[in-house]
Amino acid sequence: MADTADSVLRTSLRAGSYHDSVVLMRLQRALAAREGVLDAGVVMATPANREILAASGLLDGSPDVTAASAGDLLIAVRAESDEIAAEALAQVDALLSARVASGNVGYRPKSLDGAIRQLPDARWVAISVPGRFAAQVADQALERGKNVFLYSDNVSLADEVALKRKARERGLLVLGPDCGTAILGGVGLGFANRVRRGAVGLVAASGTGLQAVAARVHALGGGLSQAIGLGGRDLSAEVGGITALQALDLLARDPETRVIVLLGKPPESAVAAKLFAAARAAQKPVVVNLLGLAQPARVLGNVHFAVSLAEAARLAVGLSHLPPSRSLALARDDGGAASYFRGLFSGGTLAYETQLALDLALDPLWSNAPVGAARTLADPLTSCEHTVLDLGADEFTVGRLHPMIDPDLRLRRLRSEAADSQVRLIALDVVLGDGAHADPAGVLALEIEHALALRSDLAIAAFVVGTDADPQNLAEQIATLERAGAHVVQTTEELASFAIETLPPPLRSEEGRPVSLDAVAPPLPTINVGIETFFDSLIEQGARALQVDWRPPAGGNEHLAGLLARLRANRSTG
Amino acid sequence: MADTADSVLRTSLRAGSYHDSVVLMRLQRALAAREGVLDAGVVMATPANREILAASGLLDGSPDVTAASAGDLLIAVRAESDEIAAEALAQVDALLSARVASGNVGYRPKSLDGAIRQLPDARWVAISVPGRFAAQVADQALERGKNVFLYSDNVSLADEVALKRKARERGLLVLGPDCGTAILGGVGLGFANRVRRGAVGLVAASGTGLQAVAARVHALGGGLSQAIGLGGRDLSAEVGGITALQALDLLARDPETRVIVLLGKPPESAVAAKLFAAARAAQKPVVVNLLGLAQPARVLGNVHFAVSLAEAARLAVGLSHLPPSRSLALARDDGGAASYFRGLFSGGTLAYETQLALDLALDPLWSNAPVGAARTLADPLTSCEHTVLDLGADEFTVGRLHPMIDPDLRLRRLRSEAADSQVRLIALDVVLGDGAHADPAGVLALEIEHALALRSDLAIAAFVVGTDADPQNLAEQIATLERAGAHVVQTTEELASFAIETLPPPLRSEEGRPVSLDAVAPPLPTINVGIETFFDSLIEQGARALQVDWRPPAGGNEHLAGLLARLRANRSTG
Repeated sequence: MADTADSVLRTSLRAGSYHDSVVLMRLQRALAAREGVLDAGVVMATPANREILAASGLLDGSPDVTAASAGDLLIAVRAESDEIAAEALAQVDALLSARVASGNVGYRPKSLDGAIRQLPDARWVAISVPGRFAAQVADQALERGKNVFLYSDNVSLADEVALKRKARERGLLVLGPDCGTAILGGVGLGFANRVRRGAVGLVAASGTGLQAVAARVHALGGGLSQAIGLGGRDLSAEVGGITALQALDLLARDPETRVIVLLGKPPESAVAAKLFAAARAAQKPVVVNLLGLAQPARVLGNVHFAVSLAEAARLAVGLSHLPPSRSLALARDDGGAASYFRGLFSGGTLAYETQLALDLALDPLWSNAPVGAARTLADPLTSCEHTVLDLGADEFTVGRLHPMIDPDLRLRRLRSEAADSQVRLIALDVVLGDGAHADPAGVLALEIEHALALRSDLAIAAFVVGTDADPQNLAEQIATLERAGAHVVQTTEELASFAIETLPPPLRSEEGRPVSLDAVAPPLPTINVGIETFFDSLIEQGARALQVDWRPPAGGNEHLAGLLARLRANRSTG
Repeated sequence: MADTADSVLRTSLRAGSYHDSVVLMRLQRALAAREGVLDAGVVMATPANREILAASGLLDGSPDVTAASAGDLLIAVRAESDEIAAEALAQVDALLSARVASGNVGYRPKSLDGAIRQLPDARWVAISVPGRFAAQVADQALERGKNVFLYSDNVSLADEVALKRKARERGLLVLGPDCGTAILGGVGLGFANRVRRGAVGLVAASGTGLQAVAARVHALGGGLSQAIGLGGRDLSAEVGGITALQALDLLARDPETRVIVLLGKPPESAVAAKLFAAARAAQKPVVVNLLGLAQPARVLGNVHFAVSLAEAARLAVGLSHLPPSRSLALARDDGGAASYFRGLFSGGTLAYETQLALDLALDPLWSNAPVGAARTLADPLTSCEHTVLDLGADEFTVGRLHPMIDPDLRLRRLRSEAADSQVRLIALDVVLGDGAHADPAGVLALEIEHALALRSDLAIAAFVVGTDADPQNLAEQIATLERAGAHVVQTTEELASFAIETLPPPLRSEEGRPVSLDAVAPPLPTINVGIETFFDSLIEQGARALQVDWRPPAGGNEHLAGLLARLRANRSTG
């Protein structure tokens, strides 16, 4: 089955041994390049890799291949003849042990501690060893007070959380795991495009997202201050955006950074709210592109929302040309208890759009007709924290006219919301036109005036939908509402902007120690543990770097490594 | 408990009787306006309405009130004294039976058929009777060949589907249920703002969304050709956008309409794909704002995505000033079997962004790392229909270098995808920079050239991420790919545009009969069944309209109505 009319397939196994992936790639290329060899595969014998070999006709059903485990190295050669295949396989040991002269070979420490002794001012340790060994190396780096760039994937979520918490306590950063890229102090770690230095600071939970924006910023004539990769899971509920929040805080303090760009997949809503609060607090323009998140608006205060990576780059470069931002007006915290938003809408769509525009800013947000991140109100008759109500929803209109005709229900609700001392801002829509109430502003104005007279810390916004041809007279309706003290808006954008300016900013929890700006200041002496080509890249970029000649515990033998780990654990607890 | 030191609460019940909501509202206002009456409530005694009364202190715990059911009318009066309350309640019958002179009272037919005899050229029947009676009236209108504007809510989903299917078969429209607004032939139905006539046609599954955009279009100096409300459930999976698709088709054929705006909440993905296909087929600019849907891009072909209602209006007015669109280039259907897209990405974020940009256009879309509407590929090694792969995902990188360093896996996959005769377009990302392969374009070019030489109906797009400072030389990498025959792009927007131009358009199922443009041509003779103020509005707008003096079957007595319905059913089946 494995042999065909004009080719033979031969395989070889190396049980339970560790090899650097670059070495394996080079071995495969060397085998495939041999005269008479048609194809070759060199992989760790995981189920996925065996399937991939099979898809290329490089897997036979021999008993030892079938029994191979994920820790075994599987080498397959398809050749024109048995002799050629045998000759190729005979070269494997020699090829595996050959050191590739990278031009960057000098004395190499065997351990991280050895490397630190040699490069004591190293601020970063870049780690790209196989995932199952990576957390331990990263933990050791943190213990030595080093920031960590963790390229390795297949690191557990629990390890990620533990590492990032430890880093936060010590004012250090852990970028990753599965962090493909960063540009810190002008030095690229992992995969990184060469871009001019400039005013745009990137924070990205997505590797090629960071690269794509970095490349576009450069193409548009802009430049980067820092580009901080986070790893793809940083914005998950479990990790809670630990590194993203540290990075936003760092770039907010960084005088080189005039515009911040935040990239990632849409986070869980509590994380999104924390990120938005941090972005607001940065007091410089922040461009947000969370892939797949519905944009709440084009702009909310200093936060700009981009539809795509390319647009994020365009916006950032445009904003970086503006004069360095003055301190943006953040909402004053007037110390009162009034902090909640209550939207009393007669129009369902206006209620939806308001929720979507504000759910990042108002957390938690409740509604009887929730969309986006909003939660379902247990009882539509009782508001809770920030609440947006659709008073035209079915539950309010059985045997009752729509609130656009009959204002009674809304007037009662307005009175009770205004009496709640925790409420800072009430928003009402006023929809004019045929079919609607003949004077909605008039009936609301009395109640608005009454409410504002009772409470000095209350604001009321009226969102008027109407035309100058409507029977109610748009201009008079607006004048009536304004005379009563309402702030009149005519789009959801205006309402959302008014809301975030009027409501006190959410409290931010200050956990851990702030990361020092020194962490990302050039030059960036770096210790590389793992994939050698990343070390070569550091040297090519002119960075001060040191490669650790890392070997896994017990030479990659999992069984032995397990024994050693248990011994160590016993020693430290015994 | 209900009485206080300075007020008394008295209630009255009318068992199982039907009253028009406008009459109830006026009764409540009349009671509340009486000297010495502090507050009044008049509602059908549903649980929700009783709660609302209770919240205003208008509910007592008397046995008959507690026993009242949803079909009973509950009248509550809080007054300064027992006498005043009693006097007020004594007026109820007189107030209920008083006909309000609306100025539009003439002879009124008692039935829809009677109205049709009086106004035989009526094209529309506007229905706002209570939900439980509405489907029957709507069905009757369809049977008579009339289009239906169905304001009533609390109509079952099953009834909606049945009505809309029947309408589609007959080339008629059912707008609603729960359709608050429409402007057809310049006449507003339900709630409608007065806007100038113009070139923007609206299709909206959201009532105040339609009104907000209509008002903004007017404020920006634009005007509307038609504004077609759909009801909030039209885009649900169950209804499948029946009316939306009819309306898009109608406006595509309407010579007055130069720009179409589609509004709603995000539909289920199969519905979204049908809407997108219809929007593409319209061959005029279509502005889409599906609240809460992540924008796939700013523009895909003739389809523009707006973040908000206000932006939708701005875009529409801007586009309406362009010269009437020439026939936009739709993808040629070259009759071949090749129709699928395969994206082979080394960058996860580029794979995500491509999915989000194309999931409306490519349905169904599969991925090993699905986002948005994409589905999970059963086997990452086997593509299916339209597929976007992240080849840097964990399952591909255990014991193997990332595809940005080691191209082997992707080269093999490219070969097998190109050999699939159903594949029309393959997209590859080519990420340059430090850490990446030294010549990714070079190794891909050979395989690209080979694939394109074998298949004349295959196209290959290369998405290059890099800068002119990168070690690989951006210009040379691009030139190498272009020489091999690849179409080179540098943003996801460019890739998505190239894809929708290159792939054949999805087949659209042509169900039912097209709606005649006559349905929305002015004047719009309309029969109104239900809320009288809507009839008043029609008259005020100068429309030809007729009000049906509608009464529910058996006078609204549910028990009797049920008996009658069963009798009818027996008669028709017996």
